[in-house]
Amino acid sequence: MPQADTMTGVLAPVVTPFTADLAVDSERLVRHCRWLAAQGCGLAVFGTNSEANSLTIEEREAVLDRLVEAGLNSRIMMPGTGCCALPDTVRLIRHAVAKGVGGVLVLPPFYYKNVSDEGLYRSYSEVIERVGDARLRLYLYHFPQMSAVPLSLDLIGRLLRAYPGTVVGIKDSSGDRANLEAILAAFPGFGVFSGTESLLLATMRAGGAGCISATANVNPAPIRELFLHWRSPGAETMQADLAELRGIVQKYPMIAAMKAMIAHYAGDDGWNRVRPPLVELPAADADALLAELARHNFEMPGIGG
Amino acid sequence: MPQADTMTGVLAPVVTPFTADLAVDSERLVRHCRWLAAQGCGLAVFGTNSEANSLTIEEREAVLDRLVEAGLNSRIMMPGTGCCALPDTVRLIRHAVAKGVGGVLVLPPFYYKNVSDEGLYRSYSEVIERVGDARLRLYLYHFPQMSAVPLSLDLIGRLLRAYPGTVVGIKDSSGDRANLEAILAAFPGFGVFSGTESLLLATMRAGGAGCISATANVNPAPIRELFLHWRSPGAETMQADLAELRGIVQKYPMIAAMKAMIAHYAGDDGWNRVRPPLVELPAADADALLAELARHNFEMPGIGG
Repeated sequence: MPQADTMTGVLAPVVTPFTADLAVDSERLVRHCRWLAAQGCGLAVFGTNSEANSLTIEEREAVLDRLVEAGLNSRIMMPGTGCCALPDTVRLIRHAVAKGVGGVLVLPPFYYKNVSDEGLYRSYSEVIERVGDARLRLYLYHFPQMSAVPLSLDLIGRLLRAYPGTVVGIKDSSGDRANLEAILAAFPGFGVFSGTESLLLATMRAGGAGCISATANVNPAPIRELFLHWRSPGAETMQADLAELRGIVQKYPMIAAMKAMIAHYAGDDGWNRVRPPLVELPAADADALLAELARHNFEMPGIGG
Repeated sequence: MPQADTMTGVLAPVVTPFTADLAVDSERLVRHCRWLAAQGCGLAVFGTNSEANSLTIEEREAVLDRLVEAGLNSRIMMPGTGCCALPDTVRLIRHAVAKGVGGVLVLPPFYYKNVSDEGLYRSYSEVIERVGDARLRLYLYHFPQMSAVPLSLDLIGRLLRAYPGTVVGIKDSSGDRANLEAILAAFPGFGVFSGTESLLLATMRAGGAGCISATANVNPAPIRELFLHWRSPGAETMQADLAELRGIVQKYPMIAAMKAMIAHYAGDDGWNRVRPPLVELPAADADALLAELARHNFEMPGIGG
């Protein structure tokens, strides 16, 4: 079990809507965050699926300010703050901590490849020292397929020993169940979130904290149900249903597919926009996705406002 | 042959020195740029080997301002300006163009992997349209091993046709001679720079523009010699000598190794510093590198000031 004052549950890496000129559309974002929060879903804003690395530092700060101003509870937020440049990471974390977020999710610097554990240790360590704030709750972000910079068990252990109470967990987006279980076996009580709800039951059984999953943007309530009732007799069935739904969405590029779903179920075409280098879902793909979802009686209750 | 008003020659992706608190050390950088320029070497500041992606946008702007203030000729500069976030790339290019740089070297947005050519086209296109400046000379940056986002021949061709006179060249850091020759065969007159001096002769023979190579930071004059005399009878020998020297440095992580060389030959230990996630060259490795260089009678004439 994760330590008492850290985050647990289901969080969505909140997709980021854009206006016609590709500026961040804060008002659509506020509405989506409210919908997610109403279903008990935490807000991992500025994640991979938020197109966070397509946003400037200034945009990320302004958006977080706006969400808090709009009355969303910052304790359920775990903004992504890991940048390539160390001073940017420090700046975003300081800003987020000042807003009272529940935690921050920190990618390693992801431009240089094949960097050493020593270099990654120094990177996280320097960030923590510079932030210098006892309120900081830092979650590591292991996503080798995208960042191409994996975080080893050795590195995690070294950071945990150096910064207990600050380095409190990890998002494991590798999709590798063995890695997730190895982390939990090595560091009992570490706040491990799976990067997919398809491993939520396995994560909870191994003593993890929950999941931070793209699909929570469109399917938050059923994922939350499994989180709440993972010890129940129906858990395996719930897990299978979640994996099936995810499998449908995952046939397409995830971000564009989720935006197409929100656009459709909210009746708001503007949701389809993405920033380059991503492209929106082609109409034929969107039609096929929505038809398959309809056959599964998929719904997003209340998404239209 | 590249078009008349574009860059040719040998450029160094200028390594970036840091102060003890890891701020950019502009004064050491100015001295190094002056040394390079005095040997006819162009300044590809903010390249991969400059640790550019470990610098903030503000730091990059301030450093470029300082170099120009210091009297360095901006026409020999090709700053790296490609960021993950499109507005950052636009901002850096506008700033660089206003300073009168010879060109800008633009990485594709490098966080998302397996993006489509259409998405990359939109990314470059949107940047060029937003900058909207006839003075812009844009060089694409193909470095799949580091960015993990390759630029295809199709994409290059599409950009060239859409923005003739603006998209004027490419740095090919793949190290793949066949790719380099395929680009030149498909687009005669395109300003192709090899990312390594080991392919400089091949590049020139195929009609390319020169090279932008890490090792030009430490060995600029001999590389420049080959560029100037690539049609001479001695060119093959010069090429072999350059490749041999590069091979010695390349046994170690390049950035740390080059900084160790400058620190040694300039008698200035401060040059060894790197920003995390990189680490400086371990002393034993530095000793081995310097010993091998000494056996090859390697020198950096005038580097000490």
